[in-house]
Amino acid sequence: MKQPGGTDGQKRRAGERAAAAVPDGAVVGLGTGSTAAAAIRALGDRVASGLAVRAVPTSYQSRRLAREASIPLVTLEDATPDLAIDGADQVAGFDLVKGGGAAHAREKLVATAADRYLVVIDETKLAGVLSIAVPIEVLPDAVPVVRSRLGALGGEPTLRAAERKDGPVVTDNGNLVLDCAFGEIPDPEALADGIAAIPGVVEHGLFVSMTDALYVGTDSGVDVRDAPK
Amino acid sequence: MKQPGGTDGQKRRAGERAAAAVPDGAVVGLGTGSTAAAAIRALGDRVASGLAVRAVPTSYQSRRLAREASIPLVTLEDATPDLAIDGADQVAGFDLVKGGGAAHAREKLVATAADRYLVVIDETKLAGVLSIAVPIEVLPDAVPVVRSRLGALGGEPTLRAAERKDGPVVTDNGNLVLDCAFGEIPDPEALADGIAAIPGVVEHGLFVSMTDALYVGTDSGVDVRDAPK
Repeated sequence: MKQPGGTDGQKRRAGERAAAAVPDGAVVGLGTGSTAAAAIRALGDRVASGLAVRAVPTSYQSRRLAREASIPLVTLEDATPDLAIDGADQVAGFDLVKGGGAAHAREKLVATAADRYLVVIDETKLAGVLSIAVPIEVLPDAVPVVRSRLGALGGEPTLRAAERKDGPVVTDNGNLVLDCAFGEIPDPEALADGIAAIPGVVEHGLFVSMTDALYVGTDSGVDVRDAPK
Repeated sequence: MKQPGGTDGQKRRAGERAAAAVPDGAVVGLGTGSTAAAAIRALGDRVASGLAVRAVPTSYQSRRLAREASIPLVTLEDATPDLAIDGADQVAGFDLVKGGGAAHAREKLVATAADRYLVVIDETKLAGVLSIAVPIEVLPDAVPVVRSRLGALGGEPTLRAAERKDGPVVTDNGNLVLDCAFGEIPDPEALADGIAAIPGVVEHGLFVSMTDALYVGTDSGVDVRDAPK
């Protein structure tokens, strides 16, 4: 789930700096969430000033924001993103937990398709080791089986309830979300493999070895960190 | 895709023998396809004679057959299968390729939930090594990304076209199917892990180390093989 976050200023600074890194003519994947939204708005300002880009949104939310900012939209069928700008719920090193907004399946897809993956966060998202619950999108029929298998991996899954409708959150793909607490995750890659192998799991929120650069918004500026090749 | 198959007699014998192994009071997972259908009909005959079972279907097809046979139905939310009876498109040792009928996501779910997984095939499905194309269910948006990543794993994916509607086959879960040829698959477990890790993959048709017993229908009878523990 989403953690109590940083300030709007931290998010805005991180988003603006990443948007400034988008070259003219690029195809850009657009992530979901408050810091990615700041990047989309900053990119919209550059488009208004003449920057030519085409964008691949990762959710209804990012599609709407891009439309409002008059950023031309394309799909993964049309174009391969040169880069993607995306937020994260927690970051340790360059590994991420994502999915507080339940858009992580499409975000991971766009991140995988993109040549470069830029992650924008405020500094409150940094951690020494990943430890927040991992959002896991599952086929609706699969919830009991996935629950039991996640327990075998040491996790404590909770079906995410909706707040503005009765019953569970339904993703943009029509699936459900289990938020699975594992405590500290010392080996995200091994856990990612374990979760991915469970039948009925559509996508999990661990993003391991995908980040090319981190843009960390602080009160005084932006700390840009390039991942080792 | 489905291979040219064995005879109706071979399938019927395998299905009947597996149905005969269902104990009174059991919860039974019901697979999809022609040999699983033979098992469902044979189980229906036993129910008509007084056997008490409840069944978890894996598809619209198996649900309909079970209804026709007056087998009481439950869901995975209601009950955990004691055993599941399912077909396969190709079998090497006790590893399977499934998904010719595009029901493999739910089949794998039910197989995973069941205490015992009985696989019914005709003898034409046996192979020394798995080699037919692996059906892979993917999120509709994910097709370009998954295609490219399957290529990196040495596969040649083809989007499965429908024959009775325009465009692609859509699964019971609302997703699409890539049939991915890999040639011979000497290490199904490694390939299964590689495919499962691709973003946008909902489920693949490799069933590795899941089978508890094989029921192989031949012209003269049924060859029953128990998997090593």
